[in-house]
Parts: sequence; C-alpha cells; structure tokens
Amino acid sequence: MASEKILGYLDSHRDEHVDQLVEFLKIPSISSQSDHDQDTRRAASFVADELKELGLAVEVVDLGGHPLIYAETEIRPDRKTLLFYGHYDVQPVDPLDLWDTPPFEPRIENGIIYARGACDDKGQVYTHIKALEAYVRQGIELPVNVKFIIEGEEEAGGESIYKYTEQNAEKMACDAIIVSDTALYNETTPGICYSLKGLAYMEIQVTGPAMDLHSGSYGGTVQNPGNALAEIVAKLKDEDGRCLVPGFYDDVLELDQEERDGFAELGYTDEILCKETGASAAFGEKGFTTLERMWARPTCDVNGLLSGYGGEGAKTIIPANAMAKVSMRLVPNQEPEKIAKAFTDYVLSIAPAGVKVEVIDHHGANPVLVPRKSDMMKAGMSALEQGFGAKPVFIREGGSIPIVGTFQKCLKSPVLLLGYGLSTDNIHSPNEKFHLDNFWRGARTSAILMEEAAKQG
Amino acid sequence: MASEKILGYLDSHRDEHVDQLVEFLKIPSISSQSDHDQDTRRAASFVADELKELGLAVEVVDLGGHPLIYAETEIRPDRKTLLFYGHYDVQPVDPLDLWDTPPFEPRIENGIIYARGACDDKGQVYTHIKALEAYVRQGIELPVNVKFIIEGEEEAGGESIYKYTEQNAEKMACDAIIVSDTALYNETTPGICYSLKGLAYMEIQVTGPAMDLHSGSYGGTVQNPGNALAEIVAKLKDEDGRCLVPGFYDDVLELDQEERDGFAELGYTDEILCKETGASAAFGEKGFTTLERMWARPTCDVNGLLSGYGGEGAKTIIPANAMAKVSMRLVPNQEPEKIAKAFTDYVLSIAPAGVKVEVIDHHGANPVLVPRKSDMMKAGMSALEQGFGAKPVFIREGGSIPIVGTFQKCLKSPVLLLGYGLSTDNIHSPNEKFHLDNFWRGARTSAILMEEAAKQG
Repeated sequence: MASEKILGYLDSHRDEHVDQLVEFLKIPSISSQSDHDQDTRRAASFVADELKELGLAVEVVDLGGHPLIYAETEIRPDRKTLLFYGHYDVQPVDPLDLWDTPPFEPRIENGIIYARGACDDKGQVYTHIKALEAYVRQGIELPVNVKFIIEGEEEAGGESIYKYTEQNAEKMACDAIIVSDTALYNETTPGICYSLKGLAYMEIQVTGPAMDLHSGSYGGTVQNPGNALAEIVAKLKDEDGRCLVPGFYDDVLELDQEERDGFAELGYTDEILCKETGASAAFGEKGFTTLERMWARPTCDVNGLLSGYGGEGAKTIIPANAMAKVSMRLVPNQEPEKIAKAFTDYVLSIAPAGVKVEVIDHHGANPVLVPRKSDMMKAGMSALEQGFGAKPVFIREGGSIPIVGTFQKCLKSPVLLLGYGLSTDNIHSPNEKFHLDNFWRGARTSAILMEEAAKQG
Repeated sequence: MASEKILGYLDSHRDEHVDQLVEFLKIPSISSQSDHDQDTRRAASFVADELKELGLAVEVVDLGGHPLIYAETEIRPDRKTLLFYGHYDVQPVDPLDLWDTPPFEPRIENGIIYARGACDDKGQVYTHIKALEAYVRQGIELPVNVKFIIEGEEEAGGESIYKYTEQNAEKMACDAIIVSDTALYNETTPGICYSLKGLAYMEIQVTGPAMDLHSGSYGGTVQNPGNALAEIVAKLKDEDGRCLVPGFYDDVLELDQEERDGFAELGYTDEILCKETGASAAFGEKGFTTLERMWARPTCDVNGLLSGYGGEGAKTIIPANAMAKVSMRLVPNQEPEKIAKAFTDYVLSIAPAGVKVEVIDHHGANPVLVPRKSDMMKAGMSALEQGFGAKPVFIREGGSIPIVGTFQKCLKSPVLLLGYGLSTDNIHSPNEKFHLDNFWRGARTSAILMEEAAKQG
C-alpha cells in the first residue's frame, strides 16, 4: 500500500498547495455576471491546465455557456473508475461592504482562508486535484481510473452539464461519482450525505386593478391584491407549519428507525439551531425532531413577498398587484412536477374573488437518496475516517444539488456526497471561508478513497 | 344684487385668468423635495402678492416649514365671514416619463389645462382669488368678510397649519370654512361633500432569524416571517372583506335612509367602478352597495408587502423579516387612536409562534361629518347650482383631509367641501389636469357664494 508515500507528499506540499489555491481563488469567476465572462474562462483554463499537466486527457467543452471541463486518466478496464464532480464558478459577492477584506484577495488568518469560492467550490475541487497530483508526482500507479467533470455554471443555473451528461453517459461511466459540494457534519465530525432535498420553486401573482388606486377613493370597493395574496399564502400551511397542499405528503418516504436513531445520536439541539440562525425558537411540523424536519421532511417557505409600497412612512394605495415566491423543498420520493401541479391547482382553487391569480413554476429539482449500504459507501466512510481522524456519520442535507439526480439517472452509479466544508463557512455570503485543516484533510481523504475504492468488491 | 356685473367681469376676463393661472402653474412648488424650496417660496409669494394687490392684509408666516399665508379683507362685524382654505404646494412628478408634456410647462388642449397642480390645488385656490378680484376690480363692496389661509405643506404632511390654527382660532373665526380640494360628483353634476373618511395607518413588522437563511439548510426548522406575516394579514378581514379587528365597527355611524336613498339616486354602478379602476369586479362587505362601501364604510387595506426576494427568478431564502403596511379608512364616529390600539392589540394576539411581531402606528386622521342641513350648506348648494348650471348633489369622499378635522375642532364653524375638480383629473399622477370650464364655473360659484352666504340667517 502506497498510502504513506502519498500522504507524505501531501503533508510536505501543504504550503505549496495553499499558494496554488490562492491563485485559483484570485480569479473572480462569477458565472452569473457576464462582465466576468473572461474571468470565468480563465478559471476554466486554470483547472484544465493543471489536469493536463497531470497527464489527463482534457476536453474543454463549449455548449453555449461557460466551458465544461471533462478529463480522464488512462482508462484500464481492470480498474475501478471514480468520477469527480465540482465547479470552478462562484457566487456574486454582494453586499461587498460586508466583506472584511476583498473577496478576490484571499486572506489567511488563524488557519482559515477567506475568499469567494474558498469553500464553494474551488477549495473542495482542488482537494481532488491535489490527491491525484500526489500519485502522479510520486510516480505511483493510480489504483483507480479517474475522471473529472468540472463545470462553470453551477451558480448560474446553466444547462451545459445536464446536456453533456445526458449525451455522454457511456464516456462518463464509473463505479462512483464523488461530489464535494456539501459540508462535514460539524467541526469535529466528518459525514457522508446520503440524501438531498429536491425543490419546486413557485411564484404566485395576483392582479387586481389596472393601476395602484387611491385607498381612500376606492377602499372597500375592489378586492385588494395584497390582502388576497396574504389569504392564499396563509392557506399554504397550518399553524404548526404542515403544508396544506392536497397530496403533498402522499409520496414522502418516511424515515426508518435506524435513521431516526442515527439523527438522535448526533445530539443536534434547538439551542444549536437558535445560535446558528438567530431565531428565538425552533418551529415546525409536529411529531418530528428539528433535525428530522431539517433533513427529511418536505417544507413550504415564502422566499419573497412584494406588493405596493415598501418604502419609509406611508403611501395610501390599493396596490395593482402582489407577488409571492414560494419554494417547497422535497424529500424522497416526492416528484417536483407532481408537487408543482398540486400546488398550482390548490392555489387556483383557493383564489379569492375579484382578482386574477396566476402561478408560475420556476424550476424544480429531484430529491436524492443514496443507499447507505454499498461497497463504495463503505470505501467513502473508511477514507473519511482515515483522512479526518474521526469516525464519520451519515447525514442528510436540506439543500438541493440538481445535477446529482441527473448523474443517478444517466450514469446509474452510486453518488458519494463527500463534503469537506462547514455549514458556517459562509458560502453565498460575505466572508466565505475554508479551514485549511479541512482542505488538507480533504486531499488526504480523496487520495485514500482511490485506494479504498480499488479494494472493494 | 351685483351678480350680473360680477359674473360679467369673470366672463370677460376668462383668458386673462387662464394666462395668470399658467404663470402660477409654471412654478414647481414641490413641497416634499428640498431642492424645490426656492420654488415653493416663489409660489407662496405669487399668492401673497395677488392677495396684497387686491387690498388684503397679508401675513406670510414661517413656522419652520414652508410659508403659510394668512390674509383677510377689512373685517366689518356686521358682515358674515368666509375663510377660504387651499394649498399652493404640489405633489412630486414621478414617473416623469409618463407625462405627455412637461409637468411645469402648462399645456391647454380641448379646453383642458395639463400641469402638476392644475387641479390639486392651485387651480382651485385660484378660483377664489379671481372671485374676490371680480368684486375688488369692479369696486363692488364685498357682501362678506373674506379670509384666506393658504398653506405650502399639504403634500408634505407639514405641521405649520395645524400649529397656526390651534394658536389663532380667534383671528381665523368665521361663519364657514370653504375647502376646495375635493371633486365634483361627475362631469355633469356638481356636489358638496359632507363627509370625509379618517385614517389609521399601521405597519406590521415581523422579525425572525438574524439574517436571511438558506431555505434548504434551515427550511422546516424555524418560523418563516413571510408566512407568519401572511397569516396575520389574512386574519385582518374575512372573505367578504369585513374587518375582523375586535370592536372595529362599534362606533360606526350607520347611514340613514335618506343618505342611502340619495346614494342610490346617483346611479353609480359596478360597471362604472370597473371602468374607472380596471378591476374585473366589485368586491366588499355584504349588505352595502358599492357606493355605500366607498363613501361610508370603514376599510382595511394592505398598502404594501415586503419580504425577502422580490426580483426576477428565484432566490431560495427564508427571509429574516417581513413587513406589511395596512391602512384603515375610518368613518364617523370612529376614532383613529382607538382603532389603532384595537388593531395593535389584535395583531399581537394573533402573532404566530416563533417570530417577533411589532406594530407601528404611523399616523391617523379623524373622519369628518358636516351637517347637511345648515344655512351655509344651503348657500353652498345654491351657489353651486348657479355657478355650474346644474342641480348639485350631496356626496361623501373616501379620502381624508386631516386639516378639516382641526378646523372643525378649533374654529367650530361649518366646513363646506366645495370641490371643482374631477376624480379623473389625475391628481398625484402624471398628466394632472383641470377642465377650464370647471375653473371658470368654480370662480363664478365662489363669487356667488359670497352673496348667498351674506343672505343667510
């Protein structure tokens, strides 16, 4: 077993790898802002160049959006194959004034690197590249075939990777897909995420009079779209937070006892929740613990309300229209299309008199469930334990990673959601960060995973 | 009776008066925008100078805001006294791009003058000044003492006129107060407004987590301020639009049969309402006609909703807070303070768990009711009939004119709400206008009113 040499290489190149990560993080590859298109392309080249230097066959694929990078080592049929997924693009940086230092001038302080993309997802992508580098630079034969698919449209909702995966399933064939875009359970406990929530994102539009009306001149004579919208939204959930859309819970896969026990053992408390969120109390569906609700119960949340006057002081109008954005996070085996339709039908059925109500289906994502018992899951757990020096736990995640569903459907391989970040790493927020310890441990984990995967079945 | 000479003068000076009005309208006296403070002061001087030229004793009073103009003719104790109220300041002009021609370059087309302030309130104020001029320039003794109180803060919510009225009740003593800041019933029917609604303007603030949360990471675990706000707002009214705040209707003065009959005779239909507003249907409290609801029933309307994300597409957050502005238009004998307190108590009592709910009382105004049977009302009706050549009707108004309540309280004189505008004159909107026929008829009415008032009791 070559572990020691590999891990020795990673240990002795820590500073060099951080320096290289700093260069990667300096590139403002904000995919949703077209004035950064050049930067986004530069970040793609950065990744492609590193993979080329490590001897991989690299394709930079242009499907109309930002470049997609596909790369693979020499493929030997007698070896298992791992496909590593990640993205080199980053979120916008607003509000800029809340950053302690500029988002694209990485700063290291107390073993933490601060920069946009540090955790989501450049830092995590880089762990896999550095793991591969350890083998290549040491001249040690790779225990597995390695493939990379690194995209540049994750934060912009781009379609390239979906198209590519659907058309290249054979090329991308693998024994496991490694997705490092989630988080550890907490600072001391690594975890493998085995379920992601899906999503149905809806918008309700209520239209009343042709223009804002003087609330004195016309008050009491016409339906007020703001009041009508509130009526509709209020009927989406009961007072315990249980969704009232008919059939909403029909397809929900209930937690098994082992999962509930596992969650309970993690010791997540409402105190922790309130500290993390600043909320005064936990709230939600009866009969479930907070962690069960967070990880395994579908939700229905207002994301935005907008109607009439929102400025200072008073403006006395009956607004011409009102809008609510409402997202439902779905769990296995709910289907976004079915839920979106049930939601639409329900909202139209409760539409108050005197206004026009429309429902827009923005987008959806399938929930993900990965079997906890598989050879590859075993390999992942073992790698994590060795890489982080602590026993990993099974976790779930309330967020959605839509591409995972597509990977499962097209590639039919198990997905290992192996996240090295922390939920407090401020992804999508000012002062995004990544603990260098987790960066280094992540690289070790990825390197060990290649060996562990080779050993299985 | 000097009517013929007076009216002859007004008729033969029509064009000259319009030319003068044009000069008045050219002054951009937007009281709420401090970069127009010089203009606002210029509009005050314009009014003060005209009144001085007509021989009145004029005071330009500075109480910290825009100047208040108080003026009076020689006061002879054997004559009745009329106090004319109006304002020389105007609303802002946004959105400027919706004006067909610039708001401060008055344009006359098909007998209509278009400009900011044409109807609200410069054009109406000017009718009284021109009526007075007719007497003075003809050397005809005034049948009444005339006082003017013309303010420059009506559109900016200024306090000057309230302070002045409270401190100068004796000086302002009069037999009737003429307020021309409302509208005719319609294009062919003049009216005297005998009731204005009051106002209680409230804001509900719901606060949840310390920051916007990722709706995946924390969905289902904490109360969502957007959902909570919708629950509260939905409970403000039942599905027929009847307000659910306890005690809301307790003090409502019910319409008497004569009023209901009078309203019915006006022939206002839901078809007219839908045409005026663009609403698809009328809506509101059962047991009342649309006009009864508009003029004589208290209302409860959302003026604004704001929470989380209101932009294009999707943002998956649990908003940190949510806000609703809600105004209640009050009718005699509801009291704004009492209603504001009932509203606050009720909202706090229905506040959902897990969020902090606060209620802000922005401001209130008392409803106004003027007895329909009085000498001065008779004088007003007679003047209107002669001035407009059509039988006037009694109307009410859903809007509020807060100063009227203060006049009633401090001066204890009947208020004649003698409006010469039309509800379609786009006050507060682009392309504000005033029909020149109504301008001229208004001046005649004001002139005749002086004689009619002198004749009474």
